[in-house]
Amino acid sequence: MTLLFSDDDVAAAVDAPLTVAAMRDALLAAYAGRLIAPPRASAPLGGGRMVLTAGHLTGQWYGFRSYDTFGHPESGQLVVLHDATTGAVRAIAVGEELGSRRTGGLGGVAVDALARADAATVGVVGSGRQAWTQVWAAAAVRPLREVTVYSRSAARREAFAARVRAELGVPARAVGSAAAAVRDRDVVVLATTSTVPVLDAADLAPGTHVNTVGFKQADRHEFGTDLLDAADLLVTDSPGQAAAYVPPMLAAVEPYAGRLRDLGAVLAGEAPGRTTADQISVFCSTGLAGTEVFLLDRLARVAVSAR
Amino acid sequence: MTLLFSDDDVAAAVDAPLTVAAMRDALLAAYAGRLIAPPRASAPLGGGRMVLTAGHLTGQWYGFRSYDTFGHPESGQLVVLHDATTGAVRAIAVGEELGSRRTGGLGGVAVDALARADAATVGVVGSGRQAWTQVWAAAAVRPLREVTVYSRSAARREAFAARVRAELGVPARAVGSAAAAVRDRDVVVLATTSTVPVLDAADLAPGTHVNTVGFKQADRHEFGTDLLDAADLLVTDSPGQAAAYVPPMLAAVEPYAGRLRDLGAVLAGEAPGRTTADQISVFCSTGLAGTEVFLLDRLARVAVSAR
Repeated sequence: MTLLFSDDDVAAAVDAPLTVAAMRDALLAAYAGRLIAPPRASAPLGGGRMVLTAGHLTGQWYGFRSYDTFGHPESGQLVVLHDATTGAVRAIAVGEELGSRRTGGLGGVAVDALARADAATVGVVGSGRQAWTQVWAAAAVRPLREVTVYSRSAARREAFAARVRAELGVPARAVGSAAAAVRDRDVVVLATTSTVPVLDAADLAPGTHVNTVGFKQADRHEFGTDLLDAADLLVTDSPGQAAAYVPPMLAAVEPYAGRLRDLGAVLAGEAPGRTTADQISVFCSTGLAGTEVFLLDRLARVAVSAR
Repeated sequence: MTLLFSDDDVAAAVDAPLTVAAMRDALLAAYAGRLIAPPRASAPLGGGRMVLTAGHLTGQWYGFRSYDTFGHPESGQLVVLHDATTGAVRAIAVGEELGSRRTGGLGGVAVDALARADAATVGVVGSGRQAWTQVWAAAAVRPLREVTVYSRSAARREAFAARVRAELGVPARAVGSAAAAVRDRDVVVLATTSTVPVLDAADLAPGTHVNTVGFKQADRHEFGTDLLDAADLLVTDSPGQAAAYVPPMLAAVEPYAGRLRDLGAVLAGEAPGRTTADQISVFCSTGLAGTEVFLLDRLARVAVSAR
C-alpha cells in the first residue's frame, strides 16, 4: 500500500523540530557514508528537462526526487520512497512543501550548529517559500526575539512579517532595505532569486551567522565574494555537490574552496565550528541529495504510527 | 488532484484494445517527431541504480517511468504523468501492470501490422508476465484459434495455458519443447529471460511473424542470428533505442542494421510491411520510451470521464 501525500498533508504533519532532527541525522549519515547521494541525472524533453536526484540510506530505503525545468506554474515535484528490502514504493509526496521544508531543515541545522548560542534576532532578505522555511526552522533551534524582513515587494514583505507573527509567535517587521534587514542581526537569511548581490558584507555585525539559499555561482549570485572574505567559517551541506556546480559555486573555488567545511563533519565533531562569539559564519546551502527522501521516510513513519 | 493507480486499478481499466490503440498512436506520434523520448538517465545508488525513462508528447503531457536495478522482490516501478501546460502531476501508477501491458500493446501493434491477415495460431516460449501480455494483446488484433506454450516449468506452462483458456477464451495447450510450441504457428512470441537462444529458426513455418521481447544483445540473446537471417522483414519500435544498446542489439549491427525498419514508419505507410504470405517477419521490441506515460494518459482520461 503506497501512501500519497499532498502539500497539505506535508504541512499538517512535518513540523520544524521533526524536520531539523531529520536533517541532522541525514547530514551525519551522509558524512558517515551511509547516505549515498549521487549527482543528479536528467533527460532532455525539448524545452525542458526531467531531473532526478536520488538517495539511498543503506539497509533502510532508497528513492528520489523528480522535478522539471519547464518553468510551468505548478512545478509538480515528486518525492518517492522505496523500502530497501522489498523494493516496494512506501510513499510518494507530490508538490513543493516537502522539498522546501527539507531545505529549511538543513538551514535550521546550520543555525543550530554555527550561530551563537544566544542568537535571537533574524534578518531575512527574500519573502518566498524558501525564506519562510528558513525562519520556520531557525525558530525551532533558537528562541527568537525579533525577525526583520526585506524583499522588493512591500506587500509581500509585510505579509511575510505578519505570517511570522501569526504562525511563529515572534515579533516581526518589514523594513525598506536589505541593509536595514540584516544590520545587527544574530542570524541572516538570504533566500532570493536575485542573480546579483543583495547584501553588503560590511552591513553585518561581528558574530553573525548567514544562511544562503539562493544563487551562489560564479555567473549569478545573491551575495558577492565580500561575504566569503568576511567569513571566518565557511560551511556547506554537501562539499561534493558544491564542487560539481557548473559554473562553479563561488565558495567552491580558490581561495575559498580550501576553507569550505562539511556541516556533517562539524556535527560529528570532526571539523571545528564557531570558536568565538565574534566570528562570522556562512552556510552555503546546496540541498544535499537524498534528504527529501530522508524526510519522506520520517513522514511515512509518523503517518503509519498515527493510524 | 493527483490520481494514484495500483496494479489492480490498471488491470481493471486498461484492456487490450485500449492498449493496442494507444501504442499505435504512440508509435505514429514518435515517428512524426511529436513524442520526444530521450535515452534513459540513471543514478548509481550502491548495489543498484535508479533509472528514469522520460517522454514528452508536445503540447499534451510529459512524464517518466522510474525503476531500479536492485533486483528486489517488489520492483516498485512508477509511471508519472504531468500536464504539459500547468506542470501539475495528473496521475501516478505504482507497480508492474502498466509497463507490461504497454509492452504487450506494442507487440499487439506489431502483430496487427506485420502478421498475416489470417493469422490465428500463436506459439509462445516463456510463461511470465511479458509472455502473457503479448498473447493478451495479440488476441485483440486477430481472432485466435489456438495458443501453444512452452516454458521450462511444467507447472507454469500449464497455468499459462489455463489462463489463456479462462481469460481469453482461446483453446490453449502446454507443450514439452520450444520447437513444439512454435512449429506451424502463424505468430510466435519469445518472452523469456534466457541469455541463450531458445528457438531454432528452422522450426518456423514460412509466413510466421515473431515478436521478441527478451534479451537480444550481442552478449545475451534468446534467439540467434539464424532468426535474423531467416527474416524477410526486420522491424523495431525504436531504431534509436535499438542502436543505443550496450552491448549492441544483434539486429542493430551489420548485416542486419541496414534492414531494421521503424514500426512507426510501417504504420505511417512510409516503409513497406509484409508483401507476401510466406515472408517471415520479426519484431524486435525495445520498449519505446515515453509509451508508459502515453498509456497512463489514456488511463487517466478514462478514470476522469468515468467519475
